[in-house]
Amino acid sequence: MRILMTGAAGMIGRKLTSRLIKDGTLRGRKITALDLHDIVPAQTPDAPGIAIRTLTGDMADAGAAEKLIADRPDVIFHLAGIVSGEAEANFDLGYRVNFDGTRALLDAVRLAEGYQPRLVFASTIAVYGGPFPDVIPDDFQQAPLSSYGTQKLMSELLLTDFTRRGFLDGIGIRLPTICVRPGKPNKAASGFFSGIIREPLAGQEAILPVPRTVLHTHASPRAAVGFLMHGAEIDGAKVGPRRNLTMPGVAVTVGEQIEALRRVAGEDAVKLIREEHDEAVWGIVKNWATRFEAKRAKELGFKAEASFDEIVKAYIEDEVGRSA
Amino acid sequence: MRILMTGAAGMIGRKLTSRLIKDGTLRGRKITALDLHDIVPAQTPDAPGIAIRTLTGDMADAGAAEKLIADRPDVIFHLAGIVSGEAEANFDLGYRVNFDGTRALLDAVRLAEGYQPRLVFASTIAVYGGPFPDVIPDDFQQAPLSSYGTQKLMSELLLTDFTRRGFLDGIGIRLPTICVRPGKPNKAASGFFSGIIREPLAGQEAILPVPRTVLHTHASPRAAVGFLMHGAEIDGAKVGPRRNLTMPGVAVTVGEQIEALRRVAGEDAVKLIREEHDEAVWGIVKNWATRFEAKRAKELGFKAEASFDEIVKAYIEDEVGRSA
Repeated sequence: MRILMTGAAGMIGRKLTSRLIKDGTLRGRKITALDLHDIVPAQTPDAPGIAIRTLTGDMADAGAAEKLIADRPDVIFHLAGIVSGEAEANFDLGYRVNFDGTRALLDAVRLAEGYQPRLVFASTIAVYGGPFPDVIPDDFQQAPLSSYGTQKLMSELLLTDFTRRGFLDGIGIRLPTICVRPGKPNKAASGFFSGIIREPLAGQEAILPVPRTVLHTHASPRAAVGFLMHGAEIDGAKVGPRRNLTMPGVAVTVGEQIEALRRVAGEDAVKLIREEHDEAVWGIVKNWATRFEAKRAKELGFKAEASFDEIVKAYIEDEVGRSA
Repeated sequence: MRILMTGAAGMIGRKLTSRLIKDGTLRGRKITALDLHDIVPAQTPDAPGIAIRTLTGDMADAGAAEKLIADRPDVIFHLAGIVSGEAEANFDLGYRVNFDGTRALLDAVRLAEGYQPRLVFASTIAVYGGPFPDVIPDDFQQAPLSSYGTQKLMSELLLTDFTRRGFLDGIGIRLPTICVRPGKPNKAASGFFSGIIREPLAGQEAILPVPRTVLHTHASPRAAVGFLMHGAEIDGAKVGPRRNLTMPGVAVTVGEQIEALRRVAGEDAVKLIREEHDEAVWGIVKNWATRFEAKRAKELGFKAEASFDEIVKAYIEDEVGRSA
């Protein structure tokens, strides 16, 4: 079993790499080779019995994707992409990385004769755009309101069409907001969802820029890795022609996030959260999707945490006391 | 007012050209120049006062789209595309013409500084895929089941994102099945919808390969031209951020089509329809969309025929006795 992972140097890529090495098998077969691709070199963890290669480059370059799949990986995790804010700020780069790179990879697979790998694509709930109902069903129309969401949706459509035509066996995983993200605070509008948990657990102050009533859906990095693993394992026939699945998550208000922090880490942690309304952040966040039904994904066995308490505990187990 | 039309040599392109010349104005301004582009030369009708240019080439070629918009047309009708069956049979050609060509055109407009034309894009109800409800609402999810539908939907998404970003002012027109198509019978699975009207009106036998209970939505070529014209005229602010509109049409069963033919052309015409079940055609047609709500388009003033009788009469007025 050879595995190719794009975007392997990112947070989810690193965690997925660790999980693959720890499990040692995928789809019932021993993992013998793992190709880690990104624009910068991914970390190469110690993995006895697995030949790890670190590959770098721009997948949208002519011939780059062909090289990546030259050894016919059995499973491809396609995680490469630039984030929403960057795709909005740099129009050309967003289309190049998030769409052209994906298309180059899919086309390389298509043109490789007799080759039909499982390709797990990290997509996003940003393929949806408001106005939203209270609970967003699986068959809600996709009307993205960002270039990022547009690029990911176009990639999803290719994935579906290429799968229908038999060129590959694609599964798209629409990830909710990943929380608690480890590491330093960033400037993403969604950053506070993680910050109000992560910073207090490190004894540092966190700013809450939106009302406590904001409802949003979260899954831990651990759950996200689980979604991708299950996306690699799942029987494609059970998924049917609609290959992109909205993942489940924990839908909570910011107030409920804070109550979970209180239960897990105590009042002293909660006291480190300072409310400081930020109209710019609120202007973005108030238009975001709140709660997803994720019926198909649940029926297909994708599992998120059952409560935000679990998400906080997962973060403490996986991150606190370790180096980011 | 300079107008650029791609796909100008096609049936709708020719009719739209005639309409533009007949009207002489668009968006309240006199039409002074009309650039007709296609892979083969479009007909150049007589049009005093309008400078007509015939342009040929592959819009997906490097630099081709830039040349097309060099004179900054005020309105662009982007009709170019290959049909569903061809896009399914020739995968590369379908993506090249239906998607890459559209993207090249949109990118050329985007990169032309200080230029923001109205761009009317001929899309299709094939952006939808079943299973369908009895009446398909405007916010029904887009899940195409063909490469053609995928390519058109990806183009729609670009149109929306480019409009949101202010690069152009796009309106996508999702056309229903165009009926009655003039000319010779073709091998499209939908061909019989037109054939059972067109052939009897010419005194020729027509084959009906599906049950009379098949329900489908139609608009005449005349109505399609009207949709495109209104798409050029309409106030973009009224359309809002969702720029692709499902057009109205006449939803009738095949049996009701035949009754309309009887009322308009008499029993002798109807006798020329021979029922001969074709399992292959039925296998395709039975999965097609039946009836669209088209609420937004109707509210925005897009008008289809009110009955299939009108569609038959429009065909007779526009086509019978003329050369196809």
